[in-house]
Amino acid sequence: MTKNKLFMQNQKKLRMGMIGGGPGSFIGAIHRNAALLDGLIEITAGAFSSRADKSLETGKELMLDENRVYASYDEMFEKELQLPKSERIDIVSIVTPNHAHFDPTKKALEMGFHVILDKPMTLSYEEAKELYQVIQNAEGIFCLTHTYTGYPMIKQAKQMIADGVIGEVRKVYVEYPQGWLWKLLESEDNKQAQWRTDPSKSGASGCFGDIGTHAFNLAEYVSGQKVTKICADLSVKVEGRQLDDDGAVLMRFENNASGILTASQIDTGAENNLKIKIYGDKGGIEWMQEDCNSLMVRWPDKPDEIYRAGSPFLSSLAQENTRTPAGHPEGYIEAFANIYRNFARCIYARQNGQEPKKEWLDFPGSEDGIRGMAFVDHVLASSESEMKWVPFIVEK
Amino acid sequence: MTKNKLFMQNQKKLRMGMIGGGPGSFIGAIHRNAALLDGLIEITAGAFSSRADKSLETGKELMLDENRVYASYDEMFEKELQLPKSERIDIVSIVTPNHAHFDPTKKALEMGFHVILDKPMTLSYEEAKELYQVIQNAEGIFCLTHTYTGYPMIKQAKQMIADGVIGEVRKVYVEYPQGWLWKLLESEDNKQAQWRTDPSKSGASGCFGDIGTHAFNLAEYVSGQKVTKICADLSVKVEGRQLDDDGAVLMRFENNASGILTASQIDTGAENNLKIKIYGDKGGIEWMQEDCNSLMVRWPDKPDEIYRAGSPFLSSLAQENTRTPAGHPEGYIEAFANIYRNFARCIYARQNGQEPKKEWLDFPGSEDGIRGMAFVDHVLASSESEMKWVPFIVEK
Amino acid sequence: MTKNKLFMQNQKKLRMGMIGGGPGSFIGAIHRNAALLDGLIEITAGAFSSRADKSLETGKELMLDENRVYASYDEMFEKELQLPKSERIDIVSIVTPNHAHFDPTKKALEMGFHVILDKPMTLSYEEAKELYQVIQNAEGIFCLTHTYTGYPMIKQAKQMIADGVIGEVRKVYVEYPQGWLWKLLESEDNKQAQWRTDPSKSGASGCFGDIGTHAFNLAEYVSGQKVTKICADLSVKVEGRQLDDDGAVLMRFENNASGILTASQIDTGAENNLKIKIYGDKGGIEWMQEDCNSLMVRWPDKPDEIYRAGSPFLSSLAQENTRTPAGHPEGYIEAFANIYRNFARCIYARQNGQEPKKEWLDFPGSEDGIRGMAFVDHVLASSESEMKWVPFIVEK
Amino acid sequence: MTKNKLFMQNQKKLRMGMIGGGPGSFIGAIHRNAALLDGLIEITAGAFSSRADKSLETGKELMLDENRVYASYDEMFEKELQLPKSERIDIVSIVTPNHAHFDPTKKALEMGFHVILDKPMTLSYEEAKELYQVIQNAEGIFCLTHTYTGYPMIKQAKQMIADGVIGEVRKVYVEYPQGWLWKLLESEDNKQAQWRTDPSKSGASGCFGDIGTHAFNLAEYVSGQKVTKICADLSVKVEGRQLDDDGAVLMRFENNASGILTASQIDTGAENNLKIKIYGDKGGIEWMQEDCNSLMVRWPDKPDEIYRAGSPFLSSLAQENTRTPAGHPEGYIEAFANIYRNFARCIYARQNGQEPKKEWLDFPGSEDGIRGMAFVDHVLASSESEMKWVPFIVEK
Repeated sequence: MTKNKLFMQNQKKLRMGMIGGGPGSFIGAIHRNAALLDGLIEITAGAFSSRADKSLETGKELMLDENRVYASYDEMFEKELQLPKSERIDIVSIVTPNHAHFDPTKKALEMGFHVILDKPMTLSYEEAKELYQVIQNAEGIFCLTHTYTGYPMIKQAKQMIADGVIGEVRKVYVEYPQGWLWKLLESEDNKQAQWRTDPSKSGASGCFGDIGTHAFNLAEYVSGQKVTKICADLSVKVEGRQLDDDGAVLMRFENNASGILTASQIDTGAENNLKIKIYGDKGGIEWMQEDCNSLMVRWPDKPDEIYRAGSPFLSSLAQENTRTPAGHPEGYIEAFANIYRNFARCIYARQNGQEPKKEWLDFPGSEDGIRGMAFVDHVLASSESEMKWVPFIVEK
Repeated sequence: MTKNKLFMQNQKKLRMGMIGGGPGSFIGAIHRNAALLDGLIEITAGAFSSRADKSLETGKELMLDENRVYASYDEMFEKELQLPKSERIDIVSIVTPNHAHFDPTKKALEMGFHVILDKPMTLSYEEAKELYQVIQNAEGIFCLTHTYTGYPMIKQAKQMIADGVIGEVRKVYVEYPQGWLWKLLESEDNKQAQWRTDPSKSGASGCFGDIGTHAFNLAEYVSGQKVTKICADLSVKVEGRQLDDDGAVLMRFENNASGILTASQIDTGAENNLKIKIYGDKGGIEWMQEDCNSLMVRWPDKPDEIYRAGSPFLSSLAQENTRTPAGHPEGYIEAFANIYRNFARCIYARQNGQEPKKEWLDFPGSEDGIRGMAFVDHVLASSESEMKWVPFIVEK
Repeated sequence: MTKNKLFMQNQKKLRMGMIGGGPGSFIGAIHRNAALLDGLIEITAGAFSSRADKSLETGKELMLDENRVYASYDEMFEKELQLPKSERIDIVSIVTPNHAHFDPTKKALEMGFHVILDKPMTLSYEEAKELYQVIQNAEGIFCLTHTYTGYPMIKQAKQMIADGVIGEVRKVYVEYPQGWLWKLLESEDNKQAQWRTDPSKSGASGCFGDIGTHAFNLAEYVSGQKVTKICADLSVKVEGRQLDDDGAVLMRFENNASGILTASQIDTGAENNLKIKIYGDKGGIEWMQEDCNSLMVRWPDKPDEIYRAGSPFLSSLAQENTRTPAGHPEGYIEAFANIYRNFARCIYARQNGQEPKKEWLDFPGSEDGIRGMAFVDHVLASSESEMKWVPFIVEK
Repeated sequence: MTKNKLFMQNQKKLRMGMIGGGPGSFIGAIHRNAALLDGLIEITAGAFSSRADKSLETGKELMLDENRVYASYDEMFEKELQLPKSERIDIVSIVTPNHAHFDPTKKALEMGFHVILDKPMTLSYEEAKELYQVIQNAEGIFCLTHTYTGYPMIKQAKQMIADGVIGEVRKVYVEYPQGWLWKLLESEDNKQAQWRTDPSKSGASGCFGDIGTHAFNLAEYVSGQKVTKICADLSVKVEGRQLDDDGAVLMRFENNASGILTASQIDTGAENNLKIKIYGDKGGIEWMQEDCNSLMVRWPDKPDEIYRAGSPFLSSLAQENTRTPAGHPEGYIEAFANIYRNFARCIYARQNGQEPKKEWLDFPGSEDGIRGMAFVDHVLASSESEMKWVPFIVEK
């Protein structure tokens, strides 16, 4: 809840243009909530749909100037660049299905915009490698919305592990159970299910491209360890489905810790209760999204402790990512907003020629993005392989 | 998550001016988050502090036009009224300590602004009675932020009880445990503790004016029953404190249901886990803020059920007050934002000459406000009385 | 899990005769499980029912020698006394409805047996006063099965509070919610409901005689504080019922701590989730029967802690009352068995002329019994009174 | 809580002799609690230790006739067989470390005793195959104490899945997290740690022989599906340890369901919270030992349900395995006692020439035993293998 006040002088809200997020989009609305919550960003423009009428419909709902509602992102880029810098959008937010990540991100970066992109980074690992290079050379800042890294108690866990509080990490469990694809929903009139299970829109993996990447990212983020080899078993459990809807991966990390990652969209009745548990040689931490404001810290020889978001004794990393005192629950939108806020703070710092606080820099980017796409690629290869272990090597 | 699309044509964001919420204010920041989250309101002006420099400091942080940052609410009202209606603020948001609720609310309403006011409504019951009459005659809409009524599962509970799902209400338990005033914090440099325990700023009650009123409001809101008599036992548990920091109230409702309300700020170690449990002659409901996205529904002869926010089978009242599907936790800020959003939707409806949906009208107002102040007044009288029961009669 | 080995030399199992607990009795079966679990007691005799055939039926199920199955307790006392001391029962266990507590307890004690009696101690306060004197003069040991004091984490809480860990007690909440009498079950064929709601068998109070006394006993036991005045509000919520089925009591303790006690049998859908929360001027403890192996310890300025039954760092009082290491849940029968085991250990100590360990002496007795009956008496008087407070004075 | 009364005529308690369970044994004491709880079994004899003085020490604590406390099981078998059948032990309970399972079990069965044996069945798969044949030909009844199958809500889950309530099983998660071997405890004076990590006493696997087998048994028991292939990754995480202390196994079942089994003894701070989650094509079930009286039942399109032990609407399989009404927690000892009780009931039925109720027959036996040993054998092989999948084939 702290704020670097000096840096806030004479500034204006950052202007954002959104790509995707038209009528019926779930994630587009969440991105907008997250961007608006802290008052640092305003939504100024958008190419919300590839259909002009749909794009306009959303633009009107958002009460935008109709001149800044576009029928394509190419048009948005072109027209916005013609505006004076003081009016032009600063940020491009991309919330399209996976097949429409690469091109607008690349173009936006090449034109000098800052980009915040919904995960996974691209449709394929090949695209990811190319985009990774683009990002390294871009002037703008790139952010990838691995939402779950935005939770304050996840930040607290990461910091405690980095500080050695639970000792050397030996064991990482991460599970991402969903049940919403328990039946062939894509054969009904469900847009979300349709694109998520369509290889041309989602890429070569369904469940693992969508939520497996979140789980993988969280495991590496919190543990501070990188995966070095994997053994995967993916399935299609619902007949007629084109992409994996379930899977499990055994993992080993660089320090030889063991890991188990499970992700499913056919755990019938499960909602979205992402969980992570990490054990070191001194203690352990456990977190789950359903109780996202608590971090259980376990000890072998004294009472377990519950750290709670908003407590004054938390690490600065956790505190920079909360808005309320303990007992006032924050949730998914706030976690998402933490990513937007840190991204925005870093943009301000750059505009002002300031050094951002290290806590602000803690948001996911191209490194997370390429590792996520490599993970999907390797999981698919491993799942096909008769050998147990596939080395996990990320080419950039 | 539904939205009445027709009504959204050609509209602009509602412009809001805030009174209070300057440097160090907790609740001011929350009001701003809540107002901004859904993109219906923009913060345009403010008199954030009675000190001009402090007001400006906050105005700059919010990146406001400095011309619209004022040193007093009187100045704000005067200057804003000189602006054309298309630029002038629509809404006044009042987040000052209790002693500064009555005057700005009365003036703002009399000048035709819509007002959203932090609870409790006033410093005293006498003020409340006068303000109640002002509100009845005002053109603008009045909203009182009893936050907890904004939670979707509280809405669900209210609807289920109103629909008779758990039968005739027999028993209401409501408890509001906090521990933050466990020591004489007001003797340290803690502004929050100082005004909360100062009768000239908080009124005749400390704990009950602050959180007892929330608990009372929630009990009546969810049960659908009005309190008819009470028996109160307030205490000052921390030596040297001027106002009650703890208490319990036995209650009876109009249908003869029994109730127990407890509120404390000296439950050392407790955060803010407001709970309500209501039992009828067919079943019961239980809710607590720490698990705010769940509603436990209990049955005598079949398995208990857990209703979860975001589930498609919830009542329209719950669904209108969520943004995410089940499993994506929403929290305190979203509950607060639900009140702002419904308030804003009703303002739009009025501006557009439309009938608001009945779900939008479900936000707390003057009736809640005057009952809350009457509750504080009666609790204090009962606590002093040697008789067990004090009739609860609200004069308007 | 420790054991004083020396004291176990050359001993035989204690022989127990049971009064009540015939066909259909719930609590009789529980007493037998509790008595048998640790192998210190054997069931040798019984007068299980006032009907000889029913008594025999239970005796056969228990595989007793038919000569030691009696048709009345008077017969049991007479015949057992004729047996040599080495065969005769040592213990009388009394599990009848309340109206049949006084007489057999008095007689058994006067004949020199040790007595373990189901709560509440008697049908009326008058009986309790008389029995209290009998117990003071008796040779045998008297134990009253206030089950909930047998839980290891309740012992831990009591010890921590006695040791000042949470500081001076300021606040005690105890609630005992049941829902099984949500309808007029006594008009159906339900023996349990019939006697519980019949004044001639249960005494002047229903819910408060049954479970209110448990809650009261637990509050005093854990807090270490005695109640000094009360304000009660009892109800009959189900039409046609003869005794209270719901109530709440405000309390003050000798050190001026405040308390709230609620007990209900019409919290429809509630099972038996007895809860206690106590806050001092340094921290707080919270326990509930549904999670009986955990004790939550709350702090204002550091993470909350969870103490767990079976942990090696618990107090000796807790450790003497567990059998399994942490993570192997113990429950209601084990809590009950702890009372039986401590009672038995004290009998052995007396037989062997040894000093019992102080942890063994920690079981409820006549003091708990008379205070419980005084509580019921005062609650009924207070509930009728128009005055708020009734002093709580126990005559012996 | 039902009981087949007819079968209880004229019977005496079953007499049991215990092998192992001398001073310091955890599991021996639990077996005794479990055997005694329901009053069907008495402990009559024992060879509690291979040291005569230690055996006698335990015998005295149990208040046994010293003539029936033996220095070896061979002596016990020999002497007991010389007693008349009406005095001789009926049951042999074997609670020694794994290396001392095979021989006494084989002998006891061959001499006509009923045998109840702690898991795992033997030291090695080879022994298991031989013992399996012995059991098939034995007159006595054989029971293997896979404790967790004794929990009432596990029984309920098994029955609901067998009845098709959650549809065709697609996914099985089972995890058994412990942390007690987080350091090299076997180098300290800890007997439990010493034999558990010593191949000559525990067999070829440590963690998987001890708790992995429990998890495997539970997965097959509840799901009603048999494992057909596995992929294992075992580790020794604590330097200097001789046997695996951690591992994970991917599994496939006969109906092509996927499974993930994890077991660890180095999840530092974890107690013993065994969990199982199974999802079918209609719904899912979730259970964990820490909340062992609840079964969560999840649905995709209506509220989740919580089934609670002791509820009158549970299956007969669950009801036969509880003693208390809902809300009176039962735990680990009761689950263990359920196995003993069902075993005892079947012995009575056989003695009386009666047909046991089908619910009584539901206890683990030789089939569970040999599959468990095969599981350990295959897990070790798979963990060494470079190939992903190892077929799971049980030879008998």
